[in-house]
Amino acid sequence: MNPAETLRSTSGEPATDGTAATPDALVVGVDYGTLSGRAVVVRVRDGQVLGSGVHAYPHAVMERELTAGPAADAGSPVVLPPDWALQVPADYVDVLKVAVPEALRQAEREHGVRAEQVVGIATDFTACTMVPTTEDGTPLNELLDLADRPHAYVKLWKHHAAQPHADRINALAHERGEPWIRRYGGLISSEWEFAKGLQLLEEDPEVYERTRHWVEAADWIVWQLCGSYVRNACTAGYKGILQDGAYPSRDFLAALNPDFAGFVDDKLAHPIGALGSRAGGLTAEAAAWTGLPEGIAVAVGNVDAHVTAPAANAVEPGQMVAIMGTSTCHVMNGDVLREVPGMCGVVDGGIVDGLWGYEAGQSGVGDIFGWFVEHGVPAGYHEEAAARGISTHELLTELAAAQEVGAHGLVALDWHSGNRSVLVDHELSGLVVGQTLATRAEDTYRALLEATAFGTRVIVEAFDGAGVPVTELIVAGGLLKNRLLMQIYSDVTRLPLSTIATDQGPALGSAIHAAVAAGHYPDVRTAAAAMGKVHRAVYTPDEERARVYDRLFAEYRLLHDHFGRGGNDVMHRLRALRREALGVAPVPAADPAPAGAVAP
Amino acid sequence: MNPAETLRSTSGEPATDGTAATPDALVVGVDYGTLSGRAVVVRVRDGQVLGSGVHAYPHAVMERELTAGPAADAGSPVVLPPDWALQVPADYVDVLKVAVPEALRQAEREHGVRAEQVVGIATDFTACTMVPTTEDGTPLNELLDLADRPHAYVKLWKHHAAQPHADRINALAHERGEPWIRRYGGLISSEWEFAKGLQLLEEDPEVYERTRHWVEAADWIVWQLCGSYVRNACTAGYKGILQDGAYPSRDFLAALNPDFAGFVDDKLAHPIGALGSRAGGLTAEAAAWTGLPEGIAVAVGNVDAHVTAPAANAVEPGQMVAIMGTSTCHVMNGDVLREVPGMCGVVDGGIVDGLWGYEAGQSGVGDIFGWFVEHGVPAGYHEEAAARGISTHELLTELAAAQEVGAHGLVALDWHSGNRSVLVDHELSGLVVGQTLATRAEDTYRALLEATAFGTRVIVEAFDGAGVPVTELIVAGGLLKNRLLMQIYSDVTRLPLSTIATDQGPALGSAIHAAVAAGHYPDVRTAAAAMGKVHRAVYTPDEERARVYDRLFAEYRLLHDHFGRGGNDVMHRLRALRREALGVAPVPAADPAPAGAVAP
Repeated sequence: MNPAETLRSTSGEPATDGTAATPDALVVGVDYGTLSGRAVVVRVRDGQVLGSGVHAYPHAVMERELTAGPAADAGSPVVLPPDWALQVPADYVDVLKVAVPEALRQAEREHGVRAEQVVGIATDFTACTMVPTTEDGTPLNELLDLADRPHAYVKLWKHHAAQPHADRINALAHERGEPWIRRYGGLISSEWEFAKGLQLLEEDPEVYERTRHWVEAADWIVWQLCGSYVRNACTAGYKGILQDGAYPSRDFLAALNPDFAGFVDDKLAHPIGALGSRAGGLTAEAAAWTGLPEGIAVAVGNVDAHVTAPAANAVEPGQMVAIMGTSTCHVMNGDVLREVPGMCGVVDGGIVDGLWGYEAGQSGVGDIFGWFVEHGVPAGYHEEAAARGISTHELLTELAAAQEVGAHGLVALDWHSGNRSVLVDHELSGLVVGQTLATRAEDTYRALLEATAFGTRVIVEAFDGAGVPVTELIVAGGLLKNRLLMQIYSDVTRLPLSTIATDQGPALGSAIHAAVAAGHYPDVRTAAAAMGKVHRAVYTPDEERARVYDRLFAEYRLLHDHFGRGGNDVMHRLRALRREALGVAPVPAADPAPAGAVAP
Repeated sequence: MNPAETLRSTSGEPATDGTAATPDALVVGVDYGTLSGRAVVVRVRDGQVLGSGVHAYPHAVMERELTAGPAADAGSPVVLPPDWALQVPADYVDVLKVAVPEALRQAEREHGVRAEQVVGIATDFTACTMVPTTEDGTPLNELLDLADRPHAYVKLWKHHAAQPHADRINALAHERGEPWIRRYGGLISSEWEFAKGLQLLEEDPEVYERTRHWVEAADWIVWQLCGSYVRNACTAGYKGILQDGAYPSRDFLAALNPDFAGFVDDKLAHPIGALGSRAGGLTAEAAAWTGLPEGIAVAVGNVDAHVTAPAANAVEPGQMVAIMGTSTCHVMNGDVLREVPGMCGVVDGGIVDGLWGYEAGQSGVGDIFGWFVEHGVPAGYHEEAAARGISTHELLTELAAAQEVGAHGLVALDWHSGNRSVLVDHELSGLVVGQTLATRAEDTYRALLEATAFGTRVIVEAFDGAGVPVTELIVAGGLLKNRLLMQIYSDVTRLPLSTIATDQGPALGSAIHAAVAAGHYPDVRTAAAAMGKVHRAVYTPDEERARVYDRLFAEYRLLHDHFGRGGNDVMHRLRALRREALGVAPVPAADPAPAGAVAP
């Protein structure tokens, strides 16, 4: 294959299936991240991004104290316990008011297009991020008498204070043999809808009582755009335990806490919208916020990782998209339902309507490399990198790339942030074997890069072994810039590795959904083929290196199973000892804090 | 116990047994290290050091090329293969000519004593360090026709190129069930007399043929002082495989190589001198070199680690002396013979005459801490330490000392330089378990300190379990300055920990032997009581910490046995893979290099 062809985007040509081809039609995609929202204006015909805008949330993430509400205004903010992470819903609306007009202005300035050409808008969001609302969707923190109550605010995805509640849900599900637990690799996360809901009930029953809808932020923002509450199939499945049309039963909920029995019926259940379908038309109010035409299509909500698959034109079965940043999220469509051990979840229509959407993850990837560079690399490397005008990561990568596979004599486990898939164990920790007095920083750095590739191979093999074979890796996210890392992933997995060809992955993915919701494409797969951006097979496996990696992977696998599957539970014991030594009480398994404990 | 008493040296008072008490008698001790020799002038009555002198070997250690001989003089030095380490015998004589007079001058200047008061001289040496000589003790490298032959030079203790030969000796000994192999924990080192001798034979048969005596440098220097060759009991036992009065048999040697059959009879066997006995009187020539009186007692040779025991007045059974520097050497007397699994050796009269001398070791201790500080600590620590005028080791120790036991959540294996006792496996490597994104340099540093203490506990338990109980740890060497490290050792082993009270440990130990050889004490034990310097029980175990360390040690032990005793041989496989990747041939087990291969 000609290298120039290899690098050419597959989506640079006009769609040939006759479904698109309204040259002037535009769509808007809005990506809601952890700290800011980003809007893009995109041409429906070919996915070209014509303008973009970004807006940081004024309250960012509230982790230590409430920076909103009367108490904060009076200078005595409510203090939050450890592991909390809250947000303010009005900040999300600000993104519509600031970032969307900014993107439109840029598109007009640089490409001469006008807001009137926009035919639809779609959004993606962090998940699971939950908003407690009244009947009409008003967030409870906007009620004056609740504005100083932490539980009235949005619980961001990384709010981890519901771990004891998640533990109880998991224990009970296994005890009762609930079939849905297997759809989540055997473990529900503390980040998800039920754990956060149970925490709300048990810690602030009044706010729980006044919560009419327990709403994914992904759906709440759509509600603000079109005036209708539609629950998206993605979060309802992955985060809301909706499987085969049913939620966990009233019996199950009552066994957790009698007052929780009505959680689904009273607060959660709601009509589901398929991904890419139209939730409603843009309201006059939202049109005024955004400068977009009233009545244009508003798509059903979605999640940042999941919209990235169509953005990379990777929505066919076997195409595993890895969004690689501080952590890695893997999403892949399958045409069959299989229970893959240790996956995060499988959801009908969870990525695109009509296919089974699989999700897996690695809880530490880029953050491990970052930790090592910050805390384990001597000054000389930083100085040399600075002198050459490159980052320390780039210098270490360059030195590591000069090595033959196996020359460092090391193998590491990439569990510094625990293990999401396939072990689903956040109490695991890192390990490096083989260091000698001759070991240098670039050796350990390379061993850590390789360890994350081995972690991906474990996931790929779990999918292969469960009958959902992976045939291609498509990488999105910041780490795709590291060419050594990409080549290692290709060599280690023996898969061709493609890379997304836009730095607006999630926002472009939302725009694709807007185009479908507006009727310009029949479905997301067709739209993705026309609008998605990918460089195909940029990296291909080298058989000689792959054979050496097989030997290192065999070592990784031995250590993985020994330390991760009960051969030696030293990592758990070290965590427990650490908590004891620091005077931190072990996480209680079934002893909820008293109601109101979090507010002074 | 009163702390002031605790810290008082036990040897500050005059001897009370009536054997010493010649107030004006002096002795000289000379300690031959790896890079220099150090002489001290010591008062016989109380062990007070009155003067000292030091002299660096002009040729230091020759590891890459011969810096002596005609080829070097002509500017085209002979290049040495990897793992070689040679020295020049004349450098040792230089120490007598420079360091001894310097020590005498200082003693005269500062204490008004005179050389005429000196009644004896004794030496200690690195071991196993071997000199090939003619009949009269002339080193072969001083013969003009051999002066460019690497094998004609001194093979220093750390010459490691005889590993294939050691491997063959070990394999054959186990195959034949030779009883002596158990006296060495089941393994002969490549550093020792037989391995180095076999390498000499097989790589340079002519030099082997012309070697009349294969002499420990410890004995060669005594030969230079008194004109007589006496083989000391310590190296003959620990390095020369002399057990129960016999060496390995002619049969055994012939099975290694037919030409090696006469090695013992022709080159090695020689009358043995007990430690502390008189080898002869100082020759006129040596008196001229040193400025000492002709005819004074010259003691039988000895080894640096072994003379340190009397220097610390730690020669009773149960008193384990740990000489802690880059590595640790443990020596201890016992009144019974036991075969301790994994010890380096047990020798009758190997430390003091009349007791069984046990030796064990840890191949990496201070060098692991040094490696970590150089290669694993970010700039901020070095900068803070520099700003405060302390070393980075001191800063990390201070930060680590502030932690509760177990708070770092880590456990490490201290095998970065392999494991000497009790696993006797140089292909093992380091391991750290438990690192998370919250792990900081002081955490890993403390885990490494603790790992070496756990390594010592494994050794102590091996001795206890074999019926040679350890009742006290006495520490000598540079690491005793680190108070946190000392306390950790005491807590981990639950032993009282004493520290040597002189920074001239080995040289003082030699001086003690000189006093005995000169007849001023009846034996080394009596002399040690009068002249040795120790602070008793400076550190005692804290039961609360010891209980937490028990839990960490249980983790260490699990990992130790898993990775060190065949549960997972990953460390060996990683070493092999590293050698392959670097293109280094695996160490041959029974394929000697052709004769003359080392010289161009």
